[in-house]
Amino acid sequence: MKKTTKTLLAGFALSVVAGTTLAQMKVEDAITFRQSGYKFMAWNMGKIKANVEGQYNKDQVAAAANVVAAIANSGMGALYIPGSDKGKGWHETNVKPELFTDKEGVGKVARAFNDAANEMARVAATGDAAAVKAQFGKLGETCKACHDKYRKEEH
Amino acid sequence: MKKTTKTLLAGFALSVVAGTTLAQMKVEDAITFRQSGYKFMAWNMGKIKANVEGQYNKDQVAAAANVVAAIANSGMGALYIPGSDKGKGWHETNVKPELFTDKEGVGKVARAFNDAANEMARVAATGDAAAVKAQFGKLGETCKACHDKYRKEEH
Repeated sequence: MKKTTKTLLAGFALSVVAGTTLAQMKVEDAITFRQSGYKFMAWNMGKIKANVEGQYNKDQVAAAANVVAAIANSGMGALYIPGSDKGKGWHETNVKPELFTDKEGVGKVARAFNDAANEMARVAATGDAAAVKAQFGKLGETCKACHDKYRKEEH
Repeated sequence: MKKTTKTLLAGFALSVVAGTTLAQMKVEDAITFRQSGYKFMAWNMGKIKANVEGQYNKDQVAAAANVVAAIANSGMGALYIPGSDKGKGWHETNVKPELFTDKEGVGKVARAFNDAANEMARVAATGDAAAVKAQFGKLGETCKACHDKYRKEEH
């Protein structure tokens, strides 16, 4: 199995696994959950950024990196249910329709993000501030890669 | 140091650690971040519930439990900044003013929740569905304990 295919399956596995539950999920709930996940990651990315640019606290960085990794590993692909290319959660979704059609491209950015988030958690646990700073840059690139391709400008 | 005091300090440690950053945080952002954290936990608690009541998928439960634990360990106490007893994030906050004054009580429910969330992640990693079901019940009780004391009915 090709790597891109494997990742795509991993990312979207929940839609199969929890089929019944997800069939019952409303579009607005799916959008609300995914917006919540991204927003909570943003808070934690902000904490890592503040630490690498200022006073470094190992425990805070490790905790924040664990949040980002856990959310990355949570199978958010399952929240991109049919019909959720448009709609309102906390606010109107910013997703581009391409996310629902460009499966190979989505698999690629999703894999890059997951790998970088897990590596971030691993590095953060060591407390090596320089390594964290470097990995934070790489992780941010993977966020941006997805945003550039699949997210509209914020409303 | 008494246990309640220790937990309180742990839960609210970020407000000291990241003082500068947090001083710059707007009330509406703090409320938005915490509402996002709780909402994303709710999605993951829902997945665990669906698994213990239906077809059990070890990996999905472990991933969901890791999210709940990581968010529990993220230091959300830092998001209860002065002035955020009222205000609007994604929606008007449901927090009761008592959360800002009853430090001992808050420390107690926070410690119980953190302990239960970490135990949930530990049990979920074993794949023991019966143990997960039991621990899920205990974890839910700790959510409810805080909601009962410190959260208004949903608007």
